[in-house]
Amino acid sequence: MKKFLYPNKTEWKQLLERPSLEKPNLDAVVQEVFDAVHKEGDKAVIRFTEKFQGFSGELEVTQEEIQAAKNLISPELISSIRLAVDNITRFHALQVDEGMCLETMPGVECWRKSKPIQKVGLYIPGGTAPLFSTVLMLGIPAKLAGCEEIILCSPCDKDGKLHPAILFAAELVGVTKLFIVGGIQAIAALTLGTESIPAVYKIFGPGNQYVTAAKQYAQQYRVAIDMPAGPSEVMVVADDSAYPAFVAADLLSQAEHGSDSQVILLTDSELFADLVEDEVIKQLENLPRKELAAQSLENSRILVVSSGDFTELINAYAPEHLILATAINDSLVEKVVNAGSVFIGNFTPESAGDYASGTNHTLPTNGYARQYSGVSLDSFVKKITYQKISEEGLRNIGPAIEHMAEAEDLMAHKNAVSIRLNTTK
Amino acid sequence: MKKFLYPNKTEWKQLLERPSLEKPNLDAVVQEVFDAVHKEGDKAVIRFTEKFQGFSGELEVTQEEIQAAKNLISPELISSIRLAVDNITRFHALQVDEGMCLETMPGVECWRKSKPIQKVGLYIPGGTAPLFSTVLMLGIPAKLAGCEEIILCSPCDKDGKLHPAILFAAELVGVTKLFIVGGIQAIAALTLGTESIPAVYKIFGPGNQYVTAAKQYAQQYRVAIDMPAGPSEVMVVADDSAYPAFVAADLLSQAEHGSDSQVILLTDSELFADLVEDEVIKQLENLPRKELAAQSLENSRILVVSSGDFTELINAYAPEHLILATAINDSLVEKVVNAGSVFIGNFTPESAGDYASGTNHTLPTNGYARQYSGVSLDSFVKKITYQKISEEGLRNIGPAIEHMAEAEDLMAHKNAVSIRLNTTK
Repeated sequence: MKKFLYPNKTEWKQLLERPSLEKPNLDAVVQEVFDAVHKEGDKAVIRFTEKFQGFSGELEVTQEEIQAAKNLISPELISSIRLAVDNITRFHALQVDEGMCLETMPGVECWRKSKPIQKVGLYIPGGTAPLFSTVLMLGIPAKLAGCEEIILCSPCDKDGKLHPAILFAAELVGVTKLFIVGGIQAIAALTLGTESIPAVYKIFGPGNQYVTAAKQYAQQYRVAIDMPAGPSEVMVVADDSAYPAFVAADLLSQAEHGSDSQVILLTDSELFADLVEDEVIKQLENLPRKELAAQSLENSRILVVSSGDFTELINAYAPEHLILATAINDSLVEKVVNAGSVFIGNFTPESAGDYASGTNHTLPTNGYARQYSGVSLDSFVKKITYQKISEEGLRNIGPAIEHMAEAEDLMAHKNAVSIRLNTTK
Repeated sequence: MKKFLYPNKTEWKQLLERPSLEKPNLDAVVQEVFDAVHKEGDKAVIRFTEKFQGFSGELEVTQEEIQAAKNLISPELISSIRLAVDNITRFHALQVDEGMCLETMPGVECWRKSKPIQKVGLYIPGGTAPLFSTVLMLGIPAKLAGCEEIILCSPCDKDGKLHPAILFAAELVGVTKLFIVGGIQAIAALTLGTESIPAVYKIFGPGNQYVTAAKQYAQQYRVAIDMPAGPSEVMVVADDSAYPAFVAADLLSQAEHGSDSQVILLTDSELFADLVEDEVIKQLENLPRKELAAQSLENSRILVVSSGDFTELINAYAPEHLILATAINDSLVEKVVNAGSVFIGNFTPESAGDYASGTNHTLPTNGYARQYSGVSLDSFVKKITYQKISEEGLRNIGPAIEHMAEAEDLMAHKNAVSIRLNTTK
């Protein structure tokens, strides 16, 4: 980690910059796969699955496989997942919008109500780490929102299998169909629909650069996506009241995500910074993902600043995850406006929110916490507005509408009111 | 309008298709303007304003001009705008999210709170119709949300003036800075910032194809936009209980927006359809925007179907505006899941919601009502989640996190818990 002592304010912007990523142009390959899936449907999906996943066979996971999954994972993991489901469900259930209504003027009733997005697609990456926790984070709010079709795609291994914990989690949260398809072809199928994979209205979930490019491209087909993607990141704000070993463990738990993850420590104590550095080196040694974490730490920074500058630096960086381990946590919590999720106190590691505390782990990265929220129940609904005006109501509000429509030169808008007012009475 | 009698279900999809729009590729011109604004700042904005708006001078509207505006508009219009502001404010104030919190397990507190997007940009188109109503629809929720900087851009006329109703509305709702800049250069300035125009985090508002392309492009610079743009549209569902003259007036008020607007009438009565057609022809004659409306009507359709098919057709089309004028309104309201805003009953014209009922008129077009909501207070905030775990709390939840992290092969995530559990006691 690179350390900067009391940097000048003019340098802040540069010090808070995310590592610039090489963005290969994948448009051509994405378009090719979309075109093939559009033209050939399942046939194309099967071909790409064979090519990229090395498996040729049924795309949909059978009920038998799903039912068998729970016998393939440990009882400890099953009860841990159940505990997480319980916390996540209760936290997200409180996000249900009960709607609102108001008679804005006598005879003018207005209201708003949430309606589920009928069809949603969840993408769960494959690879070494089976992200069943993401199944929970996307599937639970989808189900609570009332989405009718919850379609999950995740790339299988060479034998056509998904990790049993993914199957178990999907079954538990109420996913309606599961497919062993990954990559661009999964996003194309969810966007365009095939004989077996239904088209959806919104696609959620993380993925590699191909999946990210495909989600971007899918938006041309009137599909929505959860949020723009970027590498995961954490900012830890700590002072002498924190434990160096805990802070080091938090920095490393972010760093192990990948070499492009970013980690920033903000502290007002040079001594504390040194102690954390020592702990990072010590703990890094025992990590299986040591190489990845070490690479990510190269992009990472320790900024030693006055505690009076904490708020401004946090809000300028707008971290996905913000850990506060200071003696002034309460005041910081109040002043932070740009962050995805905030972890408060010495005993609140980021991994609590990643898995089980109840909050959602799908959060805005790359500075998008300035204007995006993390995934929540809101992400799976639309809020429709309604108005119902009585004859009396239109007499009350009509003249104002007529004046405004006329001033905007929209005479047919005016006339829609006038013709009604002239008919009544 | 083209009329279709009891079309076969296999034809529905085609009959509900939006007119396909020629989308000219404006990438090159958009990029050129962005590059110039990036390099030269105000200087470029001034140059483009001179070139495209024919005005050379100060970009920012002065306090004197703003104060003088109210003397330039009629007292009737002033009180109409005030009435609209009052209704819109009270309806949107009820959308304030009070936050939620839950102790998901003993010692594990989770909560969520709204924080305003600090800087927002509102784009208001120029041209013949001064859309001061859009100033209200964007400015009121921005202010209620607590956005600190609310920057408005709108193209001036050749004398450097904005319509006084736009200035008056902007002052009334609390816009913080007003600029007489329009087109791509306005979006570029709001995205990149210049010496006088501040950069913002999210850009709202309608515009022509240049503005739409620029908003699309702006997203590459980590700016968010309100929603994908498309031509305005209405679906009217009416039976014999409705008034043909009212329905015709509603169809025309949508059609006058532009030649690409789409209008669909769904009815179960052939006779009613004929009466509406007659009324449309009659009313069209007296409209100043007769040509535009007539062109739009050419793209528009009357579908005569069984009333039992209404719900399925509405949800398949997902109209921006839905007017229900039937004897079965209550049952339809219940079953509609895809619509931007719904207008219920014979005395609820769409123009009520366009101006003054209290609901927002910035709504999802082009079928996006399947997965997007209209603009609301939510559009101007992010919802941040928080968690605070005590030592006891971590003992309760920690083992579940450890099991899950281990199963996902993320050992540093596990270690962030273990190191804390080993330290306590």
